[in-house]
Amino acid sequence: MDIRIDRESAIPVYVQIRGGIRDLILSGRLPDGFRLPPERQLATALGVNRTTVFSAYKELKSDGLVESHVGRGTEVVSRKAGKSAVEPAGPLPWRQLARDGSVREPDPLVRDVLALTERHDVISLQAGLPAAELLPLEDLRRVQEEILVRKGPEALLHSPTEGVTAFREALCRHMVPRGIRSSPDEVLVTSGSQQGLDLVARTLLSPGDVVVVEEPSYFGALEVFRSARVRLLGVPTDRDGMRTDVLEALLARQQPRLIYTLPTFQNPSGCVLSLARRRRLLELAWRHQVPILEDDPYSDLRYEGEALPSLKALDPYGYVIHLSSFSKVLFPGLRLGWIAAPRTLVRQLALVKQTVDLHSGTLGQWIVEGFLSGGLFARHLAATRTAYRRRRDVLLSTLAEEAPPGFTWNRPQGGFYVWCRLPEDVPPTRLLAQAAAERVAYLPGGASFVEEPTGNSIRLNFTFAPEEQLREGVRRLGRALRAAQAEPQRRNRSVVGTPPIV
Amino acid sequence: MDIRIDRESAIPVYVQIRGGIRDLILSGRLPDGFRLPPERQLATALGVNRTTVFSAYKELKSDGLVESHVGRGTEVVSRKAGKSAVEPAGPLPWRQLARDGSVREPDPLVRDVLALTERHDVISLQAGLPAAELLPLEDLRRVQEEILVRKGPEALLHSPTEGVTAFREALCRHMVPRGIRSSPDEVLVTSGSQQGLDLVARTLLSPGDVVVVEEPSYFGALEVFRSARVRLLGVPTDRDGMRTDVLEALLARQQPRLIYTLPTFQNPSGCVLSLARRRRLLELAWRHQVPILEDDPYSDLRYEGEALPSLKALDPYGYVIHLSSFSKVLFPGLRLGWIAAPRTLVRQLALVKQTVDLHSGTLGQWIVEGFLSGGLFARHLAATRTAYRRRRDVLLSTLAEEAPPGFTWNRPQGGFYVWCRLPEDVPPTRLLAQAAAERVAYLPGGASFVEEPTGNSIRLNFTFAPEEQLREGVRRLGRALRAAQAEPQRRNRSVVGTPPIV
Repeated sequence: MDIRIDRESAIPVYVQIRGGIRDLILSGRLPDGFRLPPERQLATALGVNRTTVFSAYKELKSDGLVESHVGRGTEVVSRKAGKSAVEPAGPLPWRQLARDGSVREPDPLVRDVLALTERHDVISLQAGLPAAELLPLEDLRRVQEEILVRKGPEALLHSPTEGVTAFREALCRHMVPRGIRSSPDEVLVTSGSQQGLDLVARTLLSPGDVVVVEEPSYFGALEVFRSARVRLLGVPTDRDGMRTDVLEALLARQQPRLIYTLPTFQNPSGCVLSLARRRRLLELAWRHQVPILEDDPYSDLRYEGEALPSLKALDPYGYVIHLSSFSKVLFPGLRLGWIAAPRTLVRQLALVKQTVDLHSGTLGQWIVEGFLSGGLFARHLAATRTAYRRRRDVLLSTLAEEAPPGFTWNRPQGGFYVWCRLPEDVPPTRLLAQAAAERVAYLPGGASFVEEPTGNSIRLNFTFAPEEQLREGVRRLGRALRAAQAEPQRRNRSVVGTPPIV
Repeated sequence: MDIRIDRESAIPVYVQIRGGIRDLILSGRLPDGFRLPPERQLATALGVNRTTVFSAYKELKSDGLVESHVGRGTEVVSRKAGKSAVEPAGPLPWRQLARDGSVREPDPLVRDVLALTERHDVISLQAGLPAAELLPLEDLRRVQEEILVRKGPEALLHSPTEGVTAFREALCRHMVPRGIRSSPDEVLVTSGSQQGLDLVARTLLSPGDVVVVEEPSYFGALEVFRSARVRLLGVPTDRDGMRTDVLEALLARQQPRLIYTLPTFQNPSGCVLSLARRRRLLELAWRHQVPILEDDPYSDLRYEGEALPSLKALDPYGYVIHLSSFSKVLFPGLRLGWIAAPRTLVRQLALVKQTVDLHSGTLGQWIVEGFLSGGLFARHLAATRTAYRRRRDVLLSTLAEEAPPGFTWNRPQGGFYVWCRLPEDVPPTRLLAQAAAERVAYLPGGASFVEEPTGNSIRLNFTFAPEEQLREGVRRLGRALRAAQAEPQRRNRSVVGTPPIV
């Protein structure tokens, strides 16, 4: 038995002996039933008093690790026999233990694209990310320096679940150009707008409830609603956004609990809900008493044309939950978004958030507050807008040069994405294989639909990759498209019919 | 009509006119049915071509804001008549819309204490907070400077849902002294340990499931389980932690889905689960196939005595979900905790976390990684331990001087809290009133129990307030206790019986 004793240590020697033997037992080096040396013998070997070993053995007995039997001395308690000889049949079946619907494997196409994006030689037109190289790190350094001087440790302690008060005040000022006049107690800071979606779903939705979404829509929101086990009803969109005539017909037959919309520079389609439809949508919501969740992360990023008022700005009756985020402009890694909604609902959402994560990061809130109040955010936004507009134009002009016949796309006035329609003879899986070979990634359109989409689309992001990469990425995409088109035409089996399971 | 035109602007004049009129309509300054000036007249007034005004009016029509009628000219569309005249009966009944059980108002006693704590003249022995003035802000500055140089914008972008890889590697090294050998893919970074509790509940628990908890237990965990609408069964604790004999009897009758325990420096009782009971608990879990959630935020904070291996270290079969946090030592405002668990479960938790908030803050993860890998965390922990040990001793010695007869408490070997039993003649509400008058706050014990507690307790924190404040806080508490005792004895009505509702 290898037991080391440190006579200089403050820990009593008998405790050291107990600890040493315990480690040997727990690590399995002293097997079940192993007979410990008689106390006297071990005392001699270690050069300590017999009473010291006696005390150590006594502790080990009360630990339940050894037992003394007359005539057999002190033995390591067998884990294989007697009352405490318990071994499970095997590891827990965690998959079976998971709550119904709590765990959803990602869409295989999306998963493949994400795997592709991780390769360093791949140009990503896939992500919904801001331009990394434009992030104002020098401003960040200065803002943070000032926070540490001005706020001290407070900036790193807990903060209210609803958000740091000064930050909520800054958010209220930030929303004025959107036509929204909220007070700080009508604002809830969230850990990114993704958490905002989840909090709203958790607070308002039960399994089986009906939720109306646009088709296509933000796939991360569809995931939230699916994991809330609600029934999703899609309303088609055209170039003016959600088709409110279809919504009206739907509301005549269904009682949804929520209407989810991205009215401005929609993800993924890039389109904007027209003012007439905004008003129509609100009227329908008022008449049918349905809350609207307005997801608005992109409206600051308008590159041309005239701004429209947000749904919340047009709603004097408090039916609109306005959700937004800083992740499309500033530092997505800080995870900061917010909700503006009637006071009663904000209170409810805050009570849910309290059990979910107590509050969002305090330091991050002070950082963004510093950017907003010091005018640094406005400056960065202006620079970002200029850069993104140019990138959009590069993407559009390169598409015009490189895209094969039958490939069509829209021209968004703002936001992050160009939405493209594939030629009919290019099946999505075949294009994905060719794109992987060409080392370019995009978001397959299917993930943005509730049901099987009519026609195949892809979403291209133009904000993340610098201009030269955008050009090269579109060239690669063009080659992938032509290669996918050139493959011999095989009829897709699902077009022929459903194969019987045999 | 007050419409301003900027002839220098890049925005076409007709768009400016449309925008001006639209704002006047939407703000209500042009009322329903207001007749716009004839095109020619407005053109003259503004000094523009008639076709410019014509275009503006045409846009306003397609916005649905105005209508032209022969003989009446162009009028603001009435919101009060016709098809689009919709007004809701009133605001949405948000409270009724809330999902069953999603929103829980806090325990009134806890709420009162939190309100009390916000007053600046109150000494808080209530919170579970680290010492603010000991936080290593200078180290933070240096670590962050180095991150910005070394990682650049990457430190502020999105990061994997499971956590920044280098941070997960550092966490694995950090857990070795706890006897835990995990690989990075067995670790999930969470937004504080509160989120860890919530993710486990969301992934493994359905309404009506049985969950075993210690009594008393961490009230924030009880809140998570209650909002998951599970049935909580309490197992009493003594000075060696959870009574495993009671657990065994319980497991003979119930099939819990989870056993939740804080084995080391328990919150609120401060006690430690003995090694024999740790092994017994594991055996019971293995035999009955129940996962254990080991909540372990305090084990780094041992002030005396010998460390015990964590439950996870003693479990070769993967039944233990180990949950921990940095919020008790480093920067609670960064919201960083972690889970170590079998790979399959980590994968499931990550899929849930992805829809919940995408990932935890990237910058914060790099900051704590910098503290762990650079040895700064170990240095800060050692300094913190010394300071907290002294504060514990100050609290204990002042209690010995100030506490009235019948008030008893334990002596924790580590952690954050001293758990105290009130004299029988001091009802909790009366003490709270006296404590408010004396300007001292503590956590009432009732919030830590599933059912009505037997006997009344309070939890005192000794890590947040500096030594002199601790002394003064305990003096105030002593006065409050004596004042509460001195009040004339009224029999509590609930002792007499349940009053009929009339």
